[in-house]
Amino acid sequence: MAAISPVTIRRARHDDVGVMVRMLADDPLGSARERPEDPLPPCYFRAFEAVEHASHLQLMVAEDSDGAVVGCLQLCILPGLSSQGASRGLIEDVRVATHCRSRGIGEQMIQWAIAEARTRGCKLVELLTHHSRVDAQRFYVRLGFQPSHVGMTLRF
Amino acid sequence: MAAISPVTIRRARHDDVGVMVRMLADDPLGSARERPEDPLPPCYFRAFEAVEHASHLQLMVAEDSDGAVVGCLQLCILPGLSSQGASRGLIEDVRVATHCRSRGIGEQMIQWAIAEARTRGCKLVELLTHHSRVDAQRFYVRLGFQPSHVGMTLRF
Repeated sequence: MAAISPVTIRRARHDDVGVMVRMLADDPLGSARERPEDPLPPCYFRAFEAVEHASHLQLMVAEDSDGAVVGCLQLCILPGLSSQGASRGLIEDVRVATHCRSRGIGEQMIQWAIAEARTRGCKLVELLTHHSRVDAQRFYVRLGFQPSHVGMTLRF
Repeated sequence: MAAISPVTIRRARHDDVGVMVRMLADDPLGSARERPEDPLPPCYFRAFEAVEHASHLQLMVAEDSDGAVVGCLQLCILPGLSSQGASRGLIEDVRVATHCRSRGIGEQMIQWAIAEARTRGCKLVELLTHHSRVDAQRFYVRLGFQPSHVGMTLRF
């Protein structure tokens, strides 16, 4: 790994939506799904507002020492009955800007999410990662995750 | 499959918590995690209240024609930026009472969840199922799900 780049993890703002969408699109799977156009389609801003108003969701960005947004993730806190009424934290949409990989940014974001989930009473953190993302799976195992489940999806 | 038992899918109530916990416990994985004691530990009622107050969560039960609760699941609606700002539906804690299996009850519950997620604007439904639950995976594939992802978990 190259030198660690310390980042600040903070709540995403309205003016971060463009850079987050470009990160989501700059990806083998995301490139077919996203529309990183200029101006950005309004669907992204509508979604951002829905996330902002949802108390169970935290859409976060990693900001480097120059103030540039170089990563993002979304954490959802899910209460539930199972495991003696334990809440779970679900991590989604994890991205690190291509030119900033291997600097420990993803690890800082995931460690933030784990700590936040613990603080909010979760006993478990879970995520789905596409079968093709072999590097991501290795990364999560290194951070203590188990590939214990099959992640099943149904797109409409 | 035996004859289909039509069920009513309705919101779980406070007095359903006991039967839901017994279903969660009556399971190779759940038996080690749950405490289906009488009286039920208060942690379950606290979790039920947290779920009830969360507008993004729907904890549902399947009720048979005699009014008995024979299944449960939880659906979470998750807005997010990816896939052009598509919301996702996350299905968790799916259980059918052991003595009621193979009567189409699980299918009715999952079809309810898919329809509800569509109604609420989702373009995707997702779930994690433990690697050991081979029958469950076959069941979900039959309903159109793809085993497209690895489900990673970290327990504290």
